[in-house]
Amino acid sequence: MSRKIYVFDTTLRDGEQVPGAKLNLAEKLEVAEQIAKMKVDMMEVGFPSSSQGDFEAVRAISRKIGKEVWIAALGRAVQSDIDCIYESIREAENPLIHIVLGSSDVHVAKKFRKTPGQVIEMGVGAVKYASSLLPQVQYSLEDASRSEFEYLWQTIEAVVKAGATIINVPDTVGFAIPEEFGKLIYRINDRLKNLAPQVLLSVHCHNDTGLATANTLAAVKNGADKVECTINGIGERAGNTSLEEVIMGIQLHEAYYGGHTTVDTRQIYETSRMVSATMGLDIQVNKAITGENAFAHSSGIHQDGLLKSKDVYEIMDPETIGAPAMEIVLTARSGRHAFMHVTKHLGFDIPEEAVADIYQQFLIMADAKKEIYDNDVLTLLKNSPIPSRGTHPELWQLIDYEMTVVNSLPWAMVKLAQGNKEVVQSQHGSGVIDALYGAIMEAIGAPIELIDYRINSLSRGKGSLGKVTAQIRCDNQLFSGKAIEQDVIRASALSLINAVNKMVLEQARNY
Amino acid sequence: MSRKIYVFDTTLRDGEQVPGAKLNLAEKLEVAEQIAKMKVDMMEVGFPSSSQGDFEAVRAISRKIGKEVWIAALGRAVQSDIDCIYESIREAENPLIHIVLGSSDVHVAKKFRKTPGQVIEMGVGAVKYASSLLPQVQYSLEDASRSEFEYLWQTIEAVVKAGATIINVPDTVGFAIPEEFGKLIYRINDRLKNLAPQVLLSVHCHNDTGLATANTLAAVKNGADKVECTINGIGERAGNTSLEEVIMGIQLHEAYYGGHTTVDTRQIYETSRMVSATMGLDIQVNKAITGENAFAHSSGIHQDGLLKSKDVYEIMDPETIGAPAMEIVLTARSGRHAFMHVTKHLGFDIPEEAVADIYQQFLIMADAKKEIYDNDVLTLLKNSPIPSRGTHPELWQLIDYEMTVVNSLPWAMVKLAQGNKEVVQSQHGSGVIDALYGAIMEAIGAPIELIDYRINSLSRGKGSLGKVTAQIRCDNQLFSGKAIEQDVIRASALSLINAVNKMVLEQARNY
Repeated sequence: MSRKIYVFDTTLRDGEQVPGAKLNLAEKLEVAEQIAKMKVDMMEVGFPSSSQGDFEAVRAISRKIGKEVWIAALGRAVQSDIDCIYESIREAENPLIHIVLGSSDVHVAKKFRKTPGQVIEMGVGAVKYASSLLPQVQYSLEDASRSEFEYLWQTIEAVVKAGATIINVPDTVGFAIPEEFGKLIYRINDRLKNLAPQVLLSVHCHNDTGLATANTLAAVKNGADKVECTINGIGERAGNTSLEEVIMGIQLHEAYYGGHTTVDTRQIYETSRMVSATMGLDIQVNKAITGENAFAHSSGIHQDGLLKSKDVYEIMDPETIGAPAMEIVLTARSGRHAFMHVTKHLGFDIPEEAVADIYQQFLIMADAKKEIYDNDVLTLLKNSPIPSRGTHPELWQLIDYEMTVVNSLPWAMVKLAQGNKEVVQSQHGSGVIDALYGAIMEAIGAPIELIDYRINSLSRGKGSLGKVTAQIRCDNQLFSGKAIEQDVIRASALSLINAVNKMVLEQARNY
Repeated sequence: MSRKIYVFDTTLRDGEQVPGAKLNLAEKLEVAEQIAKMKVDMMEVGFPSSSQGDFEAVRAISRKIGKEVWIAALGRAVQSDIDCIYESIREAENPLIHIVLGSSDVHVAKKFRKTPGQVIEMGVGAVKYASSLLPQVQYSLEDASRSEFEYLWQTIEAVVKAGATIINVPDTVGFAIPEEFGKLIYRINDRLKNLAPQVLLSVHCHNDTGLATANTLAAVKNGADKVECTINGIGERAGNTSLEEVIMGIQLHEAYYGGHTTVDTRQIYETSRMVSATMGLDIQVNKAITGENAFAHSSGIHQDGLLKSKDVYEIMDPETIGAPAMEIVLTARSGRHAFMHVTKHLGFDIPEEAVADIYQQFLIMADAKKEIYDNDVLTLLKNSPIPSRGTHPELWQLIDYEMTVVNSLPWAMVKLAQGNKEVVQSQHGSGVIDALYGAIMEAIGAPIELIDYRINSLSRGKGSLGKVTAQIRCDNQLFSGKAIEQDVIRASALSLINAVNKMVLEQARNY
């Protein structure tokens, strides 16, 4: 059995420092519960001395999930910060005090204006005080990767003797190289395991040069017992190490790393989406593991290879991270096979002799719209002179909408059709999308909740295409819809309706 | 002097395969010219046999920039593909035929259904034919990182003897680990330099597990002469190696890698933005090097550290990549110093005795809006009972807007103020944003062109905050504006006006 690598999530502390990503208490609790569901070992959830709000949030999280996961909070090497941490986490079953202090020349000399010896003294004092309050104390040597090795070790030795139970080695500015960082960890681990074998060696990397994942994994290979990371790699500047990349990297190469984690990888996708939506931080489509395209294939060659044998181009099954099955995105490059797959999914049964014609119409549409979604296929098939059998009568379609903003009061009216039934609804709202979505939800009448809403422009200029993604929740299930239109309002309406139709199709399948 | 590492950009071939990112001919030429400006050594610009459009684009690019940079195009190991490549690139000064053929068991057996010997024969035949047409031929061993080493070498030896001048080793599915990939490159390079020292050894990595940059750099360290990458790391699935991460990684650690590139790094930022806008692929804010936050600092500790000494938290100067100077984003965590910096920049001169009050109002606003932009600060100061001296009378403000969409026809009217002057304009458009922006530009009356427009929701649900970014060009200079509002239409108007005001301030500074 390989050794266990401890996973320390700092999404709610280091991740939440991203400009604009600050969460309120209810949001923090919700995210914390989801991260705990992923079964990370430890969670850092705030910097309690920074504000009353942070303090309250850390305490609330400790109370709520403090039995499931170790709860850590950060502070400087001063007594008042440590007191604050203690008060906020002491109700957790396994509370962890995390103290950070600089160790590189630039930190010691320029930031603190102290001598190296004085800084060690500060650290030792803080650890001694923290250890008198709680058994678990983590000491972080800020900017360790740029520090002089013997001074680094002198500090580690001193704080371990003072009672630190975890030593954390951060690459604070994201300057390290995997091979060198691996060697540094090897050297520290070698001495640390002689000095105090029970002390955990941890790493915390930043992604300024795109190497956070590689540095973290190199550290694991060279003896690190614990990794610090955030969901989607969020964090200040270029962010922290991506939790999902490290976890999946270790899982894919367990023999090489000689280690494993006990994270429930099937919770990765939902956690990633929730953090992105709650913090308002979009994930780029080509983000490793959690990006929208991470498992998507669009080129003819690749779609062809995949249909012959999945392992030609796929090293991970999307289900491992709880992601929806691989999506074949319909574009002008998609073959007839992929197009027919979508029409069938929507419940259409196109007569053999009509396939060539409808596929031609699809190609023309795909050239104009770049990406083709369910509503486009529905429109294409409904407007086609070729009769298609077996359409789902319960799918919703947008017939028309009207909208005004007069005297700062947005109002929208929608006309939807479901089979032969037409429904018209109108609503006011605090913004045009608010009014529009209110009217659509009223018209549909199902108990749905909007979870996420995103617009991205797909090309430049005033006449650009707007791509909208809407995600809804109904009966605790999530459904996403997308749409592309020149008019973002129309795209907004259609993406919501596409999400509703996915729900309708899912419900039809279950009855 | 360290050895030169050749940079091969494949943004317009491998990058353009992203669903929805397909460009038209004019867009491709524009992107190609910008990439050439960055002074990469080689550019791969298409797969000419895949479509007539691709063929035309490759030929047009060869004609336009074929004197500045090597032009490569990709094809399979079949004569018709090679003919197509030849015809499309032969007008370039240094044309390069790029042939790809699988080399792993899964490719050979499952995809081609041939024996290993037959695959080598196919490759040798293709290289011989290509060499009869042009002097430079690159051979890619698809899925090399999962191939059996001796078979890999046998293939390399055969195609080099047949005339290949560049051997490319791809990690096609993004499965490799830096240390192991480095060893593979070391072994190949060792034999290759004995066999044919003039042949370049190249690598091409994918980012499925977040290690593309690390694998590419490990290859450079172990003897690779050439790196294949794309701007922003775009590409199918999790994408390719990020050009900007590899270039800056090598530059930051030239001694370690024993190599350098001749890329003009000051063009990285503009190229990154252009590719993102043209292809409609947003860059996540924490993307290394090119993300919006890559150089931004928001936490109190970091802003404080930076003001004391830049090198505490900054390892790269944003100017190195041509990015605007480090931005201190205004949030509820920003100190008074940062807030005053912005008010001064906008031309306000707040009396000493009023600062505390206005800063308090700022904090209340920042709590509600998460991020604070120029229009917010303007509104705050103009609505404040405290008189501020020195406002720029030429800054534009949004007074009101009205909008209707009736019978599918969007119409917008805006009322703007500039000092005491009020302007009202209305326009129809193909969408609401089109109508709105048409009206604003008409009202402002300057020759500005909209370059990029993006909306991101910052939080969940119907009542979520919309963050809009608008970028305009005027006199060949770019200006970006952002705004956050619950009403995305209002946020759209304000972001454009903020961009216009940046232009106005810049012009005022120059006269």
